[in-house]
Amino acid sequence: MRICDVPTPALILDRQRLRSNVKRMADRAKELGVALRPHVKTAKCAEVTKLATEGQAGGICVSTLKEANYFFEQGFTDMILGVGIVPAKLASVDVLQSRGAHVRVILDNPETARMIAEKVTELSTVLDVMIEIDSGGRRGGVQWSSPSLIEIGRIIDSSTGLNLVGVLSHAGHSYLCKTEAELIAVAEQERFSVASAAEQLREAGLPCPIVSVGATPTALFAEHLKDITEMRPGVYTLFDVTQSALGCCSIDDIAVSVLASIIGHGSADSYALVDAGALALSQDRSAEHFSEGAGYGIVFDEQGKKRCHDVNVSNVNQEHGFLRSRSKHLPYSELAIGSRMRIFPNHSCMTAAPYDKYYVVDGSDQIVAVWDKLTGW
Amino acid sequence: MRICDVPTPALILDRQRLRSNVKRMADRAKELGVALRPHVKTAKCAEVTKLATEGQAGGICVSTLKEANYFFEQGFTDMILGVGIVPAKLASVDVLQSRGAHVRVILDNPETARMIAEKVTELSTVLDVMIEIDSGGRRGGVQWSSPSLIEIGRIIDSSTGLNLVGVLSHAGHSYLCKTEAELIAVAEQERFSVASAAEQLREAGLPCPIVSVGATPTALFAEHLKDITEMRPGVYTLFDVTQSALGCCSIDDIAVSVLASIIGHGSADSYALVDAGALALSQDRSAEHFSEGAGYGIVFDEQGKKRCHDVNVSNVNQEHGFLRSRSKHLPYSELAIGSRMRIFPNHSCMTAAPYDKYYVVDGSDQIVAVWDKLTGW
Repeated sequence: MRICDVPTPALILDRQRLRSNVKRMADRAKELGVALRPHVKTAKCAEVTKLATEGQAGGICVSTLKEANYFFEQGFTDMILGVGIVPAKLASVDVLQSRGAHVRVILDNPETARMIAEKVTELSTVLDVMIEIDSGGRRGGVQWSSPSLIEIGRIIDSSTGLNLVGVLSHAGHSYLCKTEAELIAVAEQERFSVASAAEQLREAGLPCPIVSVGATPTALFAEHLKDITEMRPGVYTLFDVTQSALGCCSIDDIAVSVLASIIGHGSADSYALVDAGALALSQDRSAEHFSEGAGYGIVFDEQGKKRCHDVNVSNVNQEHGFLRSRSKHLPYSELAIGSRMRIFPNHSCMTAAPYDKYYVVDGSDQIVAVWDKLTGW
Repeated sequence: MRICDVPTPALILDRQRLRSNVKRMADRAKELGVALRPHVKTAKCAEVTKLATEGQAGGICVSTLKEANYFFEQGFTDMILGVGIVPAKLASVDVLQSRGAHVRVILDNPETARMIAEKVTELSTVLDVMIEIDSGGRRGGVQWSSPSLIEIGRIIDSSTGLNLVGVLSHAGHSYLCKTEAELIAVAEQERFSVASAAEQLREAGLPCPIVSVGATPTALFAEHLKDITEMRPGVYTLFDVTQSALGCCSIDDIAVSVLASIIGHGSADSYALVDAGALALSQDRSAEHFSEGAGYGIVFDEQGKKRCHDVNVSNVNQEHGFLRSRSKHLPYSELAIGSRMRIFPNHSCMTAAPYDKYYVVDGSDQIVAVWDKLTGW
């Protein structure tokens, strides 16, 4: 099977780029002296995760119970469930642990800690808990300096069914940085927040063996990771246009793209239509933060080698994408009806999510493998 | 199983509302004197489609080959593949037709017509082709008044492997109307465009038995559908917040919602976090067109009965949603950590797409059925 035989829309995964990306982050973790625990919600794929954990301790971070179950079935036992836990999810975690998984859960408030401490008495396994720290992203997490931190720590530590095993943060706001100086500052803010939280807990006589940071931009731009034990970047495996705009990679490092067919030309010849739209590309417009009019992805030829001038996906409907040129002259000769293009996505986590497979290429137009991946919840 | 037992995030489908929605559109088609061919890309579900085609001729419209295959396996044989065809997809259409399906394909330009006419000689079945007409939406479609229309018609009609069976349009621009008068005008524009295209073809001596329009807002607001033979609305089965803003339904007609758990409260008490984010709700912001700050969905209690004040989903990350109040005072008593909310989506086609099932309720908190649905490509 060759790229020209793949039905559209489809995800094409470049294994050479994937290998290069995972090696780069492995080298980076080594340089920084921390363990690498890849966040696997980006690719949602066992084969990608095997490459990303090669030479590492093997731990991963997941976002959902379905990911936890899938990766356990695929042989990964050591994981953090990296979205705030609720009591109703503990029974599923317990089943996984009874079968041999080790699933650390996270929480960021005393109410949840109390509810989990009560619920854990019904479980057959002991639960390792990490406290989520807000390092400035203003999503989940307690402030390192808040009295709640110690309160949460004490509730966990005093429960016989719970073990307090550490703190973690995700500096999501690093995705909004516009300069290297800002990236370095956010990386330090992330490091400082969790390191300070760990120190606070230890000073209160509480254990805190794991001190975990996690975001691709901060992993790449941190000047050092003193007092940190592990990092959990995810999107670096595949990279995307937004990561390229951030300076985390070049466009040529993006390992995933959407293969789409040109199905028509606009009646006023101002656009071309492809059979990849809001579902196949996602509606993620994060690249707009860096470049107005960036739209929903940038367009290359079928082999993914040559950029199609300044053509991008300017708009999407459910199964239609609109290709427009930012300089107004659409190169129709390269966008013939029936021909196929490769669209590099703004945010690979969002774009890859609904597909159930990757068509894998490795330096030629041959499909060298088809890798199954997870979808849904 | 009750709603409180469903793992989050999940899609809840209200069968009473679904039945009422499909009855309303069936009555509407009867009143307008046209056949109803539901577009099934909204719910992507055989059970929903069985209800939507009850009492109808049984034809459906699909957007992808995967939908065509799934619905054929589920017993639906009469379908339009409603996204512009490319030659590479004909082999799959031919396999389906060889097995007993009747798949009409659509195209809007002479190049595709010529390529299809050439390719069809390799197929074992004859192919019915419809010409897509642009009725003002500026997506796919040829203008009814363009000389290309007749050119396309002649290419199809003169090919022994192809049958010209009609014209169709989708007035996607009806989703942007802000007044009833605009909706009525767009409905008439859609009707007039395809009816005129049919007339042009017939005057040129070409056949045009099917004259098809298709969008929920135009189906509901058209004053008449003279010279039209069928309509293909889709989102009316489930409805959504955008359709409500358009005046096509009330919020109480929306049959699908996302069940999500409150996993935390913002550190400054300004937001609550749920475990349904950019993937589980989609990043569709179409409701913003009608109400600034509408965000990504509106929040009800777990039973879906009581709206949670003016709380909506203001922001999303991959698996996190941010609930905020538009009047600034978040009713925390109704948003306790661990409690569960129902989020009514902006655009149900986008929100439902990545889920593999609906948990069906029917007037109580009991889950009366779990309906499988299609995902991906």
